[in-house]
Amino acid sequence: MAIKRVGIMTGGGDCPGLNPVIRAAVMTGIRQYGWEILGIEDAFCGLIDLDYSSPHGNRWLTERDVRDIHVKGGTILGTSNKSDPFNYAVERGGEMVEVDVFDKVKANFDTLGLDALISIGGDGSMRIAQQCIDRGMTNIVGVPKTIDNDLGATDYTFGFDTAVQVATDAIDRLRDTAESHDRVMLVEVMGRDAGFIALQAGLAGGAHAILLPEINYRVEAIADMVRERREAGMPFSIVVVSEGTKPAGGEVSTLGPREAGAMIKLFGAGQKVAAALSEHIELDCRVTVLGHIQRGGTPSNFDRVLGTRFGEAAAHLIAKGEFGQMVALRGLDIVPVSLKDAVGTEKRVDPDGQMVRTGRSMGVCFG
Amino acid sequence: MAIKRVGIMTGGGDCPGLNPVIRAAVMTGIRQYGWEILGIEDAFCGLIDLDYSSPHGNRWLTERDVRDIHVKGGTILGTSNKSDPFNYAVERGGEMVEVDVFDKVKANFDTLGLDALISIGGDGSMRIAQQCIDRGMTNIVGVPKTIDNDLGATDYTFGFDTAVQVATDAIDRLRDTAESHDRVMLVEVMGRDAGFIALQAGLAGGAHAILLPEINYRVEAIADMVRERREAGMPFSIVVVSEGTKPAGGEVSTLGPREAGAMIKLFGAGQKVAAALSEHIELDCRVTVLGHIQRGGTPSNFDRVLGTRFGEAAAHLIAKGEFGQMVALRGLDIVPVSLKDAVGTEKRVDPDGQMVRTGRSMGVCFG
Amino acid sequence: MAIKRVGIMTGGGDCPGLNPVIRAAVMTGIRQYGWEILGIEDAFCGLIDLDYSSPHGNRWLTERDVRDIHVKGGTILGTSNKSDPFNYAVERGGEMVEVDVFDKVKANFDTLGLDALISIGGDGSMRIAQQCIDRGMTNIVGVPKTIDNDLGATDYTFGFDTAVQVATDAIDRLRDTAESHDRVMLVEVMGRDAGFIALQAGLAGGAHAILLPEINYRVEAIADMVRERREAGMPFSIVVVSEGTKPAGGEVSTLGPREAGAMIKLFGAGQKVAAALSEHIELDCRVTVLGHIQRGGTPSNFDRVLGTRFGEAAAHLIAKGEFGQMVALRGLDIVPVSLKDAVGTEKRVDPDGQMVRTGRSMGVCFG
Amino acid sequence: MAIKRVGIMTGGGDCPGLNPVIRAAVMTGIRQYGWEILGIEDAFCGLIDLDYSSPHGNRWLTERDVRDIHVKGGTILGTSNKSDPFNYAVERGGEMVEVDVFDKVKANFDTLGLDALISIGGDGSMRIAQQCIDRGMTNIVGVPKTIDNDLGATDYTFGFDTAVQVATDAIDRLRDTAESHDRVMLVEVMGRDAGFIALQAGLAGGAHAILLPEINYRVEAIADMVRERREAGMPFSIVVVSEGTKPAGGEVSTLGPREAGAMIKLFGAGQKVAAALSEHIELDCRVTVLGHIQRGGTPSNFDRVLGTRFGEAAAHLIAKGEFGQMVALRGLDIVPVSLKDAVGTEKRVDPDGQMVRTGRSMGVCFG
Repeated sequence: MAIKRVGIMTGGGDCPGLNPVIRAAVMTGIRQYGWEILGIEDAFCGLIDLDYSSPHGNRWLTERDVRDIHVKGGTILGTSNKSDPFNYAVERGGEMVEVDVFDKVKANFDTLGLDALISIGGDGSMRIAQQCIDRGMTNIVGVPKTIDNDLGATDYTFGFDTAVQVATDAIDRLRDTAESHDRVMLVEVMGRDAGFIALQAGLAGGAHAILLPEINYRVEAIADMVRERREAGMPFSIVVVSEGTKPAGGEVSTLGPREAGAMIKLFGAGQKVAAALSEHIELDCRVTVLGHIQRGGTPSNFDRVLGTRFGEAAAHLIAKGEFGQMVALRGLDIVPVSLKDAVGTEKRVDPDGQMVRTGRSMGVCFG
Repeated sequence: MAIKRVGIMTGGGDCPGLNPVIRAAVMTGIRQYGWEILGIEDAFCGLIDLDYSSPHGNRWLTERDVRDIHVKGGTILGTSNKSDPFNYAVERGGEMVEVDVFDKVKANFDTLGLDALISIGGDGSMRIAQQCIDRGMTNIVGVPKTIDNDLGATDYTFGFDTAVQVATDAIDRLRDTAESHDRVMLVEVMGRDAGFIALQAGLAGGAHAILLPEINYRVEAIADMVRERREAGMPFSIVVVSEGTKPAGGEVSTLGPREAGAMIKLFGAGQKVAAALSEHIELDCRVTVLGHIQRGGTPSNFDRVLGTRFGEAAAHLIAKGEFGQMVALRGLDIVPVSLKDAVGTEKRVDPDGQMVRTGRSMGVCFG
Repeated sequence: MAIKRVGIMTGGGDCPGLNPVIRAAVMTGIRQYGWEILGIEDAFCGLIDLDYSSPHGNRWLTERDVRDIHVKGGTILGTSNKSDPFNYAVERGGEMVEVDVFDKVKANFDTLGLDALISIGGDGSMRIAQQCIDRGMTNIVGVPKTIDNDLGATDYTFGFDTAVQVATDAIDRLRDTAESHDRVMLVEVMGRDAGFIALQAGLAGGAHAILLPEINYRVEAIADMVRERREAGMPFSIVVVSEGTKPAGGEVSTLGPREAGAMIKLFGAGQKVAAALSEHIELDCRVTVLGHIQRGGTPSNFDRVLGTRFGEAAAHLIAKGEFGQMVALRGLDIVPVSLKDAVGTEKRVDPDGQMVRTGRSMGVCFG
Repeated sequence: MAIKRVGIMTGGGDCPGLNPVIRAAVMTGIRQYGWEILGIEDAFCGLIDLDYSSPHGNRWLTERDVRDIHVKGGTILGTSNKSDPFNYAVERGGEMVEVDVFDKVKANFDTLGLDALISIGGDGSMRIAQQCIDRGMTNIVGVPKTIDNDLGATDYTFGFDTAVQVATDAIDRLRDTAESHDRVMLVEVMGRDAGFIALQAGLAGGAHAILLPEINYRVEAIADMVRERREAGMPFSIVVVSEGTKPAGGEVSTLGPREAGAMIKLFGAGQKVAAALSEHIELDCRVTVLGHIQRGGTPSNFDRVLGTRFGEAAAHLIAKGEFGQMVALRGLDIVPVSLKDAVGTEKRVDPDGQMVRTGRSMGVCFG
């Protein structure tokens, strides 16, 4: 079957490097293969409803449309976390219910005359892509995206390096203030289930403690580290906190239950660690939550090149009819891996691995 | 009186540009005048107690000590918010009480053989300097420091430009995510009483709303702006929020009183605006609190040069015996202004001034 | 006369901050006054020839056209150094001759139905604007642009701060290498006639020598400084060189006349200083010429806000019929100044001024 | 044999990431093994002459000495290209001759009581290390360093990512100017024999041509690309030039032989390509030579972490007595490789490899 029309979409949270993927796939598709390429708006939203438009709607992409977009964060196609065609939220009788709208997606795919689809997204998007294949919409190729770098099937995902650089720059800034004021500065970074951002940024920034989702922390250990540093003439410390880290004994609070309830709901990991730590040490503790600035901005050279290589490789897979594959980085090479195998291969920081060992050798407290 | 020994100290919150001031004063003092210069630790702490040491203690500064420190944020002398010699907190009978320890400061000043003092700090530090002069420790010259740029006696203070650049970079990053996800991104920046950081960063970043301490906001106005933008095909907005901004009718909450109590205590202005705004619009609201990353990091060229010019000018004032003065920037020139006149000349954003008018011309909502 | 249609153009070398000017003028014109605004391509090229198109040609600008352009360097309107309507180069009989095409410009201005023109450019562009006024095309308002900051009529021009920041960042990088290798690193920055970039970046970067067009250098003085630093245990130095700096005794060379001829033509100031210096010292000299990277890239917050304020103010001047004016920054205020007065008011570094004195106090060698 | 005293040195050109290696090796050595660690000045200079001191001389390193040095480019130990103990230049009878001073090195090594040596450097340094081993100074472990990333034994070397990021940032800046002025901007980057920096930065920056040492260029091909882009409405192009690239037919010049001789000596690859290209196209060509700013500055997070991991791993190899090894990155792991095998394994850009193919798919001209 000759490919003529290819759709491309981005799903899940945005990530620096998405636009380089889109640009590379579009340029390769047009220049190498003469395809028409449809940019589908807000992940599956543009396939569930062909009239969907927020703010653009689906559109045919030309080389001009993707010119210079590789320097921009975000995604020109928009993205959505609420476009799973197998569990699509609609209002019925005044209530929101989740329904299966895959048949509509498949019909629209055919209506648009699409021969294949490039789906760029996280583990959830890859799972949906595989489900589409299983249900007969087979001509799909995946491009992995996770800012947390927690996908086992690829060495790195784009966005991670940029996020870590933002966090590293922030740690460099906080160190100045920590030293000037004799403070403990806590910086909360992204990472609900995997602590790679915290670990990489913590090592790069020379943090004195790094708290990961993979290692439950004991606040006493952190307090000991802070105290030892103080006694050694360094009355300041930097603590990097993954948003998903948890204390060893479960979450407790010295506040009354009512306030505590509010706190536990409202506070993130950074504030919780700070509150607990404050009870053990005399130094001032301050928390910075980096939040969404880790997700945006111009991608680093690493993320631009990785995104470009992924996008180009995805186009070639389509051209060769190698569907059901996902592109991945292994060592220095881009390789295809089966979507089926890739889905669900979550990667976690190994508490006994090289990187954590390096941290321990440097005196980093992991809680 | 020939000056031979000069003390230098930094007070209040740290700020990019303090080290360039120290470097310039030390190099000018040593090279031009052959002084011995004592770096006093943690503002007046090092004068209140000559044995004070956290982590360094007072020390004589050489050219080598200040080599290349101009590229570093923070202050090599440390700083403290708790060193007011006229209201110094000490423990007496198990309670903290504030006492006047100025006589001790003056005695220590003489013991150290100091002929003059360069005091770098904010409005509070300048007030204390003036009090010292009034009480007979006359040989003081001030260097103004406020990251908020809210001192009327000088056009600009160092640190402000760096803080604004950090905030502008953050807005640039958040815009990508806002566009990709159709979100309202709120970014809380420093500024309890003066909104200059929010105004400058908001204009630089192309924010769609800027909320200042000087203009009470109505959440309905922001919601209208967001809605209009959405209807014009731009379902995303950036709102810059000064930490000191307040709603027009005072703070209310739709939550029950208990939770509200916790919220009002725990939440900053950004989260409060987001909570209120969420009740008026359907788009997702996300808050980023920049916090301390605005205070640290290598100073911008503007702040390095301004700090350098301030430090050099302060040394010359000392040499000329022009005590009781503070250095200030007026247009392109560094000029001395009387400390007495400078203290308390708070500067605020003028709601009818040029900068706010420029914002309004660009369609910025000020609430 | 009611203004309905306004043209806008950018002339001379590009400069970070042009796009903020365009954006602010367009948004103010459309939102506040309901104008139609024509973007004129490549300065007067688009008025000399209405069919001119490289690559875009003239176009009516909407709010959408200027959305988010404030983060981009360069100018969306293009620019040209060869569009002086009073000396326009055309081919005649196989030779290039300069002719006066102003009548054509005026006729085209009328054909387009333009009521007024915003001309953004350097001293040359302001001079041309004044000539246009003198010849009867009166409704012009100027916006000053010079990356060198060498216009006397305004405290600062946009682009300067960004260029200085690029140069300062480069100096920070070169210092690392200089220290590691015991080298003299020379960095050549922009500034043919005025040395403000070199002076500001040199002070910000802590350079050990700063060579300006305004002060002829003696290479022996630089060699002495390098030697003194070496003897003091600092066998490395940073020298910032304005491209327009010259040696005190005129340019000489120890090379044979033939090679020297080529060198003088091919070499810039940085290489010439390095060649001369190498004959006096034993340390390795390396030159970096920053060149065009000083002109591009996202503008700093200062330049974005200054450009925005200039563009908005220019639109208001047009609306009020205050033609023949140029906007300018004086202290904290944007003010109009007469174009006639502004033209030719070149600003130069004052060798006896505060900034040079500050450098000398810090031990900087000015040659 | 129990290790007690370890020397550490850095050789060859400096590179962002050297200080993280030193810091990690020192901290691991002191904290994990209780070693005394001698910082040896300027590579072998400090071992050839124990009185060598420029500017520091050898010194015992404490944790305090390496505190926060990971954020700094360069090397706190200094480096030298002229310290090969097997070919050491000395003056004899008024002439410089190269002599073998290894015996002195070995004697000094013993005098200092050193049990082992960590040698950080490029291929040349690794070769020297192997020679030392062959001559009986066996207890050496190597850490590879090459900013060009041209060592076959490791996937990446530190410094490369930072250098590429500097080049990518420069390309981003140059694009603005290129577009505004309808120009061809050429940017010369490091890479005498290997074009990895040009290739990675060119792909990251979206360059339209990338000229590598590994592919001889035909200037006509570049001119065709520029012309095609111009005809497609994009009268500007970015060309990234490795310093080591060469034209397909050898170097020729249209200048007379005398001038040409000077030019070929004085000009770098960027200027040569620009000169040749100017004869084929009408657009203005401008060259920027990035030079040493690629070598300095704070290392990227990638380079800091890679340096840290290398330094820590080297210390562990020493502790385990695994001498004659070099640390290397393979995929995600740090592994030891035999120095003997590692030396001389030069890596080059594969003209038929994935990365070049990706460029071609994107329409990049490789000359």
